Amino acid sequence: MPSVKPIEYDEASPAVRAVYDDIMQTRKIKWINNFWKVLANDAVTLRRTWESAKEIMAPGALDVLTKEMIYLAVSVTNGCEYCTASHTAAARKAGMSDAMLGELMAVVGMANETNRLSNGYRVPVDPAFEPKF
Amino acid sequence: MPSVKPIEYDEASPAVRAVYDDIMQTRKIKWINNFWKVLANDAVTLRRTWESAKEIMAPGALDVLTKEMIYLAVSVTNGCEYCTASHTAAARKAGMSDAMLGELMAVVGMANETNRLSNGYRVPVDPAFEPKF
Amino acid sequence: MPSVKPIEYDEASPAVRAVYDDIMQTRKIKWINNFWKVLANDAVTLRRTWESAKEIMAPGALDVLTKEMIYLAVSVTNGCEYCTASHTAAARKAGMSDAMLGELMAVVGMANETNRLSNGYRVPVDPAFEPKF
Amino acid sequence: MPSVKPIEYDEASPAVRAVYDDIMQTRKIKWINNFWKVLANDAVTLRRTWESAKEIMAPGALDVLTKEMIYLAVSVTNGCEYCTASHTAAARKAGMSDAMLGELMAVVGMANETNRLSNGYRVPVDPAFEPKF
Amino acid sequence: MPSVKPIEYDEASPAVRAVYDDIMQTRKIKWINNFWKVLANDAVTLRRTWESAKEIMAPGALDVLTKEMIYLAVSVTNGCEYCTASHTAAARKAGMSDAMLGELMAVVGMANETNRLSNGYRVPVDPAFEPKF
Amino acid sequence: MPSVKPIEYDEASPAVRAVYDDIMQTRKIKWINNFWKVLANDAVTLRRTWESAKEIMAPGALDVLTKEMIYLAVSVTNGCEYCTASHTAAARKAGMSDAMLGELMAVVGMANETNRLSNGYRVPVDPAFEPKF
Repeated sequence: MPSVKPIEYDEASPAVRAVYDDIMQTRKIKWINNFWKVLANDAVTLRRTWESAKEIMAPGALDVLTKEMIYLAVSVTNGCEYCTASHTAAARKAGMSDAMLGELMAVVGMANETNRLSNGYRVPVDPAFEPKF
Repeated sequence: MPSVKPIEYDEASPAVRAVYDDIMQTRKIKWINNFWKVLANDAVTLRRTWESAKEIMAPGALDVLTKEMIYLAVSVTNGCEYCTASHTAAARKAGMSDAMLGELMAVVGMANETNRLSNGYRVPVDPAFEPKF
Repeated sequence: MPSVKPIEYDEASPAVRAVYDDIMQTRKIKWINNFWKVLANDAVTLRRTWESAKEIMAPGALDVLTKEMIYLAVSVTNGCEYCTASHTAAARKAGMSDAMLGELMAVVGMANETNRLSNGYRVPVDPAFEPKF
Repeated sequence: MPSVKPIEYDEASPAVRAVYDDIMQTRKIKWINNFWKVLANDAVTLRRTWESAKEIMAPGALDVLTKEMIYLAVSVTNGCEYCTASHTAAARKAGMSDAMLGELMAVVGMANETNRLSNGYRVPVDPAFEPKF
Repeated sequence: MPSVKPIEYDEASPAVRAVYDDIMQTRKIKWINNFWKVLANDAVTLRRTWESAKEIMAPGALDVLTKEMIYLAVSVTNGCEYCTASHTAAARKAGMSDAMLGELMAVVGMANETNRLSNGYRVPVDPAFEPKF
Repeated sequence: MPSVKPIEYDEASPAVRAVYDDIMQTRKIKWINNFWKVLANDAVTLRRTWESAKEIMAPGALDVLTKEMIYLAVSVTNGCEYCTASHTAAARKAGMSDAMLGELMAVVGMANETNRLSNGYRVPVDPAFEPKF
């Protein structure tokens, strides 16, 4: 059960509704997912978080699918169930196939493994990996 | 300082040398980085980890650059400095530009933020995000 | 389902009951929450954990509300659902308003974001941040 | 060594300089710390992150000291050395005494301990902790 | 609900069945747990992960019980509910008593606490702890 | 550099000295490591943490070596460098061989990997893993 009551469109303030409208228009969908409905209890954070998401997740040097897969990899690593479920769905919508999901999960698993082998043995950074500038 | 002595090629056992040779040949390089030299103290783990890495990081449904960026995103999230340095270098070698690094970091940052907003408010997974099968 | 059977007051040993009594008296409540009932399977850990909690969470240089909000911020960061639920309740009881919860969550989210930006770019600590002594 | 070259004021673009100027004016200081200098390689992220920080860390329902202590608690939990150093300094500047730091660290330590006891024993959330709405 | 459909023995491909057969024979059991059934959607990862598990968890310099308790300690620290449940069961099967579980959890809790005290105060590694080689 | 000045024996208060004396006597050593010297800035936390450590790490249902290896596994998972260095040394002192360290690290690595595969695919707990009571 969420810590605060999710706010439905019909009961939302004009400021919250404006964000909801922009989410639905930007994503070309007709519903609002629970994350935003819960965040709407703090209208300032709702607006800022949505504006950030819109800017960060737009296609740029990286395409939308790549960004969604990175988002999913982080969410899986942190054990956030909501984010894992929502960004698995978002990545699939952006084109992630079953085979891509399988490979993504294999990379995430291995990175989590070698992160601990590196930290556990206190491996020093090779000078060759340091950037030149 | 590492927990165990890194093993150089010249002092390595034949089993370790065989792995070192395969790493250099597969990656078309002429040196071995500290991660493998430290892991070489446990020849079984060295071989298994390398075989896994070779299988997981090969191009497949995802290309090498995408895999390296996912690896980097996980390493950054876990705060593994060695892996962050080595996979930043690997991703650059695979074609990651400055602009791509900037966008990757922005996505990693935002995912870490919203993972906590979701967990912190205990947001329930929307039925629409559940897979159909 | 918990890993071990929660121990109710009526079936508890005298040592466990003594801790339960102290919890109820210290907190001025008439029930014991699941955390302590589960921990009661290991009476030594129950007693030590309760004694530590009583000492650490008492008002001192920091007031109870501030301590509860710090506890909540850590629990959210670690993704501990039980602790998030129980310390949200405890912080509210100590005076946390909806607005304070919203600001706390915003700070927790941003700290998790910039922690990764700092680690991800391997930002060196500024000499000005080092303590003088 | 950072992954990208820190950008000094004198070599910064007008867009980056504008952010640097706003940081110095808002904080009433005459220097820029490494976090922003590194982030300046991605001017969009620099601007967005600074605008978010300015909005989130301003006094509101929570005062600046409380916000800085929450920021520090998260950074310590995540093991971010840069953020731990910088927000220890920031919290001290906002009024955190040695005694307050000691109590903050004790709470952070205990929360990390009981987060694992709760997750490790899979303690179910008590109905009394669920919000009413 | 899992992200992908668990694959039952009867509907599995020959490659997946071969792994299932080896799991049941190695562990002397007659069923397959959900972890493998879900992983079976990616036959390559299923095979590799099982081969690694078989090699890593076999008795060696450490006995099976010690290995299972280490596995559990990590799973508890990461907040992985599935792994906590399955490795609590596995450790019990390998001989972990209630008293041993209680002590394991106490050590895990304390390590998580002191990890943050050490990182939070930025304690420098004592030269005496560095290895000699 | 630590956040607070490490307190040497000669400059310590009687309360801190009493803890230092007990540490040295209990461990049969003639020096105090940095963790305690830093913690000594908060004499209450120093005393409580040491009393907890003495109780938790004493031989019981689990021997000292097993406890030290569990401590190390947690510290490696959390990426705490100080704790990784100090508990690698402590585990070696308690009898951990190179082969045991290698196997411990392999288990820690694999647990971190499968924790993410389980969370990432949202694998449901098998009823057979639930405890009977």
